Amino acid sequence: MRVRNKPWAKEKVAEYPQYIPSDPMAWKGKWQDKFQNKQPIHIEVGTGKGQFITEMAKAHPEINYVGIELQTNVIVIALDKLIEEKLPNLQLLLVNGSMLTEYFAAGEVDQVYLNFSDPWPKKRHEKRRLTSPSFLSNYENILKKNGEIHFKTDNRGLFEYSLASFSQYGMILKQVWLDLHQSDFVGNIMTEYEAKFSAKGQPIYRVEAVFPER
Amino acid sequence: MRVRNKPWAKEKVAEYPQYIPSDPMAWKGKWQDKFQNKQPIHIEVGTGKGQFITEMAKAHPEINYVGIELQTNVIVIALDKLIEEKLPNLQLLLVNGSMLTEYFAAGEVDQVYLNFSDPWPKKRHEKRRLTSPSFLSNYENILKKNGEIHFKTDNRGLFEYSLASFSQYGMILKQVWLDLHQSDFVGNIMTEYEAKFSAKGQPIYRVEAVFPER
Ligand SMILES: C[S@@+](CC[C@H](N)C(=O)[O-])C[C@H]1O[C@@H](n2cnc3c(N)ncnc32)[C@H](O)[C@@H]1O
Ligand SMILES: C[S@@+](CC[C@H](N)C(=O)[O-])C[C@H]1O[C@@H](n2cnc3c(N)ncnc32)[C@H](O)[C@@H]1O
Repeated sequence: MRVRNKPWAKEKVAEYPQYIPSDPMAWKGKWQDKFQNKQPIHIEVGTGKGQFITEMAKAHPEINYVGIELQTNVIVIALDKLIEEKLPNLQLLLVNGSMLTEYFAAGEVDQVYLNFSDPWPKKRHEKRRLTSPSFLSNYENILKKNGEIHFKTDNRGLFEYSLASFSQYGMILKQVWLDLHQSDFVGNIMTEYEAKFSAKGQPIYRVEAVFPER
Repeated sequence: MRVRNKPWAKEKVAEYPQYIPSDPMAWKGKWQDKFQNKQPIHIEVGTGKGQFITEMAKAHPEINYVGIELQTNVIVIALDKLIEEKLPNLQLLLVNGSMLTEYFAAGEVDQVYLNFSDPWPKKRHEKRRLTSPSFLSNYENILKKNGEIHFKTDNRGLFEYSLASFSQYGMILKQVWLDLHQSDFVGNIMTEYEAKFSAKGQPIYRVEAVFPER
């Protein structure tokens, strides 16, 4: 996501450690202490401006959410939503999703969401895709047994790649949607990208995949 | 596929036992004797009017093909093509694809093609879908180790179902295409249904899935 540089963004993030921990590694294995209630933790990697995770947190007070984003200029927009809504079950995390095992203990997370991840269409950039094997290995590490990934995208190439990648990693596809908005899926919460691309008439793909017991 | 009843079809089929064996069970474990050359056997279940399997046989003389079709009124049209082309590496088989283990020995087949299989969209008809578990179990039985299914369809619901069905059966998805005709796939041979539906602008889905070693 390309956004204007915001010189004040770093400072603003530093002002709200109650919403974006300034010492993320310190919370590894202790995320439940960050929330009002001890309850399942769902994370989104590549949260962007935070529309999805904020709406999810409002719709599901029985779940604790962590929205993970790499870019300071982007996460501040999610932060604004959180300051406004003051949700006790949502935290933001400004880190690289390739390092999740630094910030979460084994089995600490119940579910992973990926939404409209950057497609990185060139074969030589495969390793940057959030559904490539080394990312899957990190998700598996921090997820509880039989943890799931729920992935949405409009990008055909990335979805084709991801279905094969999940399967070849050993994950089982629980359900696949090839046109989410024409399906009977209930309770869908749109992301910023989803609103944009579906308005153009592009089908939205979705998959739920589960890690096997090993 | 709905076709006009052809009272003469049964008789015509009976006239060409060299192309459509009249005693299919007798060939179980002996299919290689039916062909000019001993070489890998690929079958198509639900061959319809035979355009795909005939063109495949012409394009790949190094493979032996068996086109399997349930309806006499339909298979006679494939038979006409074979009479015309006299292909030494193509056989037709007028049987129900749910009984494959009656007609092929374990490991006798190298690959299974499914093209535009009837979608049977109602949940209560799931068992009739050619990608449902009991069919997969039959394919696995007659396929050699690490045998593959190559499946094409325009039907979104059937494709969504089949990806999950393959995966939940334990198969690995090697590659997925969500718009075959817009991809860089080379050597695609169109089926009758494929020509019809792609002319309407519908995307053609394709998957290659492999049975695991167990
Ligand atoms: C295309 S945007 C989609 C944003 C949002 N999920 C949506 O659907 O509207 C992808 C986002 O993922 C973030 N991102 C990419 N790689 C990441 C990584 N390794 N760790 C964390 N965030 C990442 C980008 O900075 C960007 O904000
Ligand atoms: C929708 S047509 C597709 C024909 C062809 N494959 C194509 O793509 O043009 C499906 C065909 O599968 C056949 N079929 C359905 N169930 C079958 C079964 N259990 N065994 C063999 N053939 C079957 C039907 O008779 C019909 O001819």
